[in-house]
Amino acid sequence: MSDKTPVTVIGLGLMGRVLAQAFLDAGHPTTVWNRTPEKAADLVARGAKQAATVAEAVEAGPLTIICVLTHDSVEDVLAAAGGSIAGRTIVNLTNGTPEQARKAEALAAGSEYLDGGIMAVPQMIAKPGALILYSGHPDAFERYRETFEVLAEARYLGDDAGRAALYDLAMLSAMYGMYGGFAHALAMVRAEGVSATEFEPYVSGWLQAMFQTLPAAAAQVDSGDFVTDVSSLAMNDTAFPNFIEASRALGLRPDVLLPMRDLIRRAVEAGHGADSVIRIVDMIPENS
Amino acid sequence: MSDKTPVTVIGLGLMGRVLAQAFLDAGHPTTVWNRTPEKAADLVARGAKQAATVAEAVEAGPLTIICVLTHDSVEDVLAAAGGSIAGRTIVNLTNGTPEQARKAEALAAGSEYLDGGIMAVPQMIAKPGALILYSGHPDAFERYRETFEVLAEARYLGDDAGRAALYDLAMLSAMYGMYGGFAHALAMVRAEGVSATEFEPYVSGWLQAMFQTLPAAAAQVDSGDFVTDVSSLAMNDTAFPNFIEASRALGLRPDVLLPMRDLIRRAVEAGHGADSVIRIVDMIPENS
Repeated sequence: MSDKTPVTVIGLGLMGRVLAQAFLDAGHPTTVWNRTPEKAADLVARGAKQAATVAEAVEAGPLTIICVLTHDSVEDVLAAAGGSIAGRTIVNLTNGTPEQARKAEALAAGSEYLDGGIMAVPQMIAKPGALILYSGHPDAFERYRETFEVLAEARYLGDDAGRAALYDLAMLSAMYGMYGGFAHALAMVRAEGVSATEFEPYVSGWLQAMFQTLPAAAAQVDSGDFVTDVSSLAMNDTAFPNFIEASRALGLRPDVLLPMRDLIRRAVEAGHGADSVIRIVDMIPENS
Repeated sequence: MSDKTPVTVIGLGLMGRVLAQAFLDAGHPTTVWNRTPEKAADLVARGAKQAATVAEAVEAGPLTIICVLTHDSVEDVLAAAGGSIAGRTIVNLTNGTPEQARKAEALAAGSEYLDGGIMAVPQMIAKPGALILYSGHPDAFERYRETFEVLAEARYLGDDAGRAALYDLAMLSAMYGMYGGFAHALAMVRAEGVSATEFEPYVSGWLQAMFQTLPAAAAQVDSGDFVTDVSSLAMNDTAFPNFIEASRALGLRPDVLLPMRDLIRRAVEAGHGADSVIRIVDMIPENS
């Protein structure tokens, strides 16, 4: 018999399957359940136990991980689990919003609830570089930290169940911004016949350099002191039409650039022209 | 007498002043000209020679650097220089578009023309990490490469005078994308009372990880082979409403996210749902 914590994985989509496999590989007794039971076959062949119902799956051990496609499915799973969750730890790794995480926590009352954000694609699970953020019940996190580390580096963000989802969504938003800018840059150089691979080291090196400025920018946001002798909003507001004009001249839609132009413009109009660019954070709330 | 190449700097704004000072510090005989002559006083006190006219400034040596505020001012300077530029090297480091660079090259006919993009703020000039991109006349670049290195690392991008401006604008576009995404991420966490400095290491670490994917993405753009087993456009299209919805629920304008949503959506509608996200580069041209 294994002395490893028995784990239940509910949901065997791309990610759920990889989570279950990682626990099996690490020697954890692993129980699985999926709405379409056939999806469990290969995991069962490799040693997983298949439960017939959600409640049976939850009752197989002290720790259940839910990884399904949508928040609605999380609610369905919790409804089906019923009283079986009482006194057990429920970890919801389904993508969602902070509100959805808190709603799931309320629905899982009686359990020790953790919500999580998986900062990795399935291929990265159980490999270096993968990160899973957790928030919610602190005792539950401490108790199972070692088990969570089977999947990825585990970081606890406090007892607000919505915090991990918040960080997850915010980190992905930042990534989409970077990716959109990168795509626009590639479109610009391609329009003049430069290959993406020829240009990529330049833009990556530049982004890497700009990266170094993010901690200081974050400190300005917290302090409210946006003084700069480097690059003011007014200077950026003046330069911005160049990017739009050059993009149009290259036959490109400048759409990716427009929200930044508007944020910078609104910050200048609000009297912040002498401030550093990160002041735009203050222009994003609806009531700004 | 110095054996260093005499250099002329035209334009003594924030950047031009720093360029002139760097040449003085490195022992180059330095001549300066500015439309408002008073701005030259402190540089003259530190050893610069002040010319009375643009033509006199250009004739002071073999190499003239123009760093003014707008392309219109570049045209004014070249008109005032007249025949003085013949056989000399003219380096235009004024911000502009590829088209403007080529126009300036044509106006500077008779000189050996280089155009450049300064990938640095004034504070970085003559310090490690500063980069200036050059394109245009190859002999001129080779002849003065060592002089250019006084200011910053000097990289030559070929004989198309517009190429340095193209790279400059594309690199800055990518930076604005990253910065917009970062600002949105900070706005999200702040809306739930998380400080920017507390969150910053998470988003920076995540962007750093995503960074590693850019070379492969560039290779896909060049090859046209967008196959992925990691994160398809269809998956991103499904997840995107979460970001918009969560941002709105936090009382934020989701504007920064919308262009990426639209690019992903259009790529899916064009039948590329199974492709990797960088396929969006193909959706940026007007005729796509």
